Amino acid sequence: MTGRFRELWDEIAPVGRDADSGGYLRYALTPPELRLREWFREQADLRGMPVSGDGNGNLFAWWGDPPTDGPATDGPNAGGPNADGSAGTGAVLTGSHFDSVPHGGAYDGPLGIVSAFLAVDELRAAGVTPVRPVVVAAFVEEEGARFGVPCLGSRLLTGEIDADRAAGLRDAAGVSFAEALGHRPAGADPALLGRFAAFVELHVEQGRALVDADAPVAVASAIWPHGRWRFELRGEGNHAGTTRMADRRDPMLTFAFTVLAANKEARLRGAHATVGRVAVEPNATNAIPSTVTGWLDARAAEPDTLDGLVEAVQAKAAERSRRDGTELTVTRESATPLVTFDGGLADRLAGLLAAPVLPTGAGHDAGVLAAHLPTAMLFVRNPTGVSHSPAEAATDDDCAAGVVALARVLEELACH
Amino acid sequence: MTGRFRELWDEIAPVGRDADSGGYLRYALTPPELRLREWFREQADLRGMPVSGDGNGNLFAWWGDPPTDGPATDGPNAGGPNADGSAGTGAVLTGSHFDSVPHGGAYDGPLGIVSAFLAVDELRAAGVTPVRPVVVAAFVEEEGARFGVPCLGSRLLTGEIDADRAAGLRDAAGVSFAEALGHRPAGADPALLGRFAAFVELHVEQGRALVDADAPVAVASAIWPHGRWRFELRGEGNHAGTTRMADRRDPMLTFAFTVLAANKEARLRGAHATVGRVAVEPNATNAIPSTVTGWLDARAAEPDTLDGLVEAVQAKAAERSRRDGTELTVTRESATPLVTFDGGLADRLAGLLAAPVLPTGAGHDAGVLAAHLPTAMLFVRNPTGVSHSPAEAATDDDCAAGVVALARVLEELACH
Repeated sequence: MTGRFRELWDEIAPVGRDADSGGYLRYALTPPELRLREWFREQADLRGMPVSGDGNGNLFAWWGDPPTDGPATDGPNAGGPNADGSAGTGAVLTGSHFDSVPHGGAYDGPLGIVSAFLAVDELRAAGVTPVRPVVVAAFVEEEGARFGVPCLGSRLLTGEIDADRAAGLRDAAGVSFAEALGHRPAGADPALLGRFAAFVELHVEQGRALVDADAPVAVASAIWPHGRWRFELRGEGNHAGTTRMADRRDPMLTFAFTVLAANKEARLRGAHATVGRVAVEPNATNAIPSTVTGWLDARAAEPDTLDGLVEAVQAKAAERSRRDGTELTVTRESATPLVTFDGGLADRLAGLLAAPVLPTGAGHDAGVLAAHLPTAMLFVRNPTGVSHSPAEAATDDDCAAGVVALARVLEELACH
Repeated sequence: MTGRFRELWDEIAPVGRDADSGGYLRYALTPPELRLREWFREQADLRGMPVSGDGNGNLFAWWGDPPTDGPATDGPNAGGPNADGSAGTGAVLTGSHFDSVPHGGAYDGPLGIVSAFLAVDELRAAGVTPVRPVVVAAFVEEEGARFGVPCLGSRLLTGEIDADRAAGLRDAAGVSFAEALGHRPAGADPALLGRFAAFVELHVEQGRALVDADAPVAVASAIWPHGRWRFELRGEGNHAGTTRMADRRDPMLTFAFTVLAANKEARLRGAHATVGRVAVEPNATNAIPSTVTGWLDARAAEPDTLDGLVEAVQAKAAERSRRDGTELTVTRESATPLVTFDGGLADRLAGLLAAPVLPTGAGHDAGVLAAHLPTAMLFVRNPTGVSHSPAEAATDDDCAAGVVALARVLEELACH
């Protein structure tokens, strides 16, 4: 499997890689990601798996029983779990996303899609005949790196974001999501969603827990609640050389104080806070900025801890803003509640794979879908523990172990 | 004069103005600035003033005695001051620059060029016949907003920057100065420089001293020593959700601390420090940055104060960098020593105009040229005191008073 993994992996490895950083620039619906979507269709064709869409930019390759063109007549969750807790007659969904953060790693997203196709190959080579369809998905704009809302594709499919709001999201160049997609997104598709009995997303680990556990694969227990808050600070643009310090209303000072406050408050609470993105107007060396906008990414194990963290950062920013004579506006751009994955399913898969169970601070499409159908995640060990960076890593052997684990999970879920 | 000022001013007011901010995007050698250079040639033609260049992107319109095409045979400063302290036989140079900072004001630069042409008109209307040429200049890339080095044109002309280094400076899109200019800059031109006996730059005031003094026009005494230092902070790019706070090497923290330290150290010393520009890699909401680069603009009345300020900021940044596990590299991008304008000339003009004499924290081409020929500056009152911002202002009456003052100065210098 290690050789087959490497062979398939090499097909996509060059797409969207920046020669300087070694990281990836695979923003949703830009040429590199469109090339990967073409590759998805080619791989599905090679395996005789018809591809359907949902009008939101998400792709689905069906091994068995694809949806018809007409409107689905089965209601929501018609294929969902039966009353006895078994998975019912619906399809088993797997897959992940192709898009990257700026200069992100190779594995975050694509590993789940490549592993899904290889797991299908593995089941077929073993002569396994599922009684349920197995469906490989590629979700669009999971990172939110282009249009600002993470898990945009799965949020649209599940109706967690309004189609009109999603249509109007714009990238840095002013292109709307609807323009990039070529049409207004279709929004919630309960009929399609109702055809899935379970979703399993395989993903590279984004920390070092599997290094510590000395295991190649883990099963996820939960996703920390998390969100993004935009801190917009308005001051008075002015000349850096001639404006007396006492006369300034410099929003960079308020921004800097907020960055340090977020770090301190997160540490006090055992939570995570990051300011990784900033926009400055006019961003000139010899001009006091008129506006500085910082984005706070905050996460914690418990919702109350997260709320307390964001309130504390906001209060400290507001206090400093008054001292600096600047104006502060805080906007919650996204919020993802605590996701507890289906406990029975996680325990079942952990037992099947003899794998550890652990929580994560990272959001995923699986976190969005977990509110709608039984959902599980598999993590593959990352020796650096680094993610959203070119230093993100996974050995071919661990990736192969991930494929084998995913194949066992799909067999378990699709053959009963 | 107020009406004539407004008429000429209206010709250039729309060029490069951003409809949203009301500020100007007139970067050197981009279409709006190229349009203004065309306008300069048109205005010179209308007045029968031949235009010459210096191979560095600077333009000179000559009223009387333009340079010949052949190499100048007179040595450096052949037209400079005579041994008796009078201005000698050289030309009197005036003018300023067209380029702006991002979303800068209307007056910073262009006021000095428009006023120069109107001052020529004023002298001619009064029947004044100068015994020396009067030359109107438009210097290129004064702000350094495109290629990073302020006063690039005057530094090239005077040899204060090496032509090869200037040629290789690149803008944010990777275009070199040589590419933008269309050829390698020619560098120092001591022969041309030697033809000038004096330089007088009229400029909008960038503070509120003239408001306090209740005067429309002032004469400059000095320019504070100042410079730009690039603080490059390297950490480890990583996932904002999954990386424990204790495991981070986040350069945004070091940056934020440096911003606050610069502000504090400047206030302690009565100096000016500004961090108005920042670049973040990868600049994604859910990624700990791998690199944050901040630019420090620092200025003080005395060189020792400036040195002490920059050393203190650097020491504090280095200390915090060690705590954050980041790497700090500080690069001095530009440094302008204290400029004391020709004291005799400033006193003579202040007496002529009955105008106050005051220092400034802002760099100007006049500051570069002051090391090479007798140089003076006139400031025109700015009611907001704001500069490098759309809020920069000057009344038409004050601008007209500036033209009249400049005409008197040119008559004084060019008729003796």
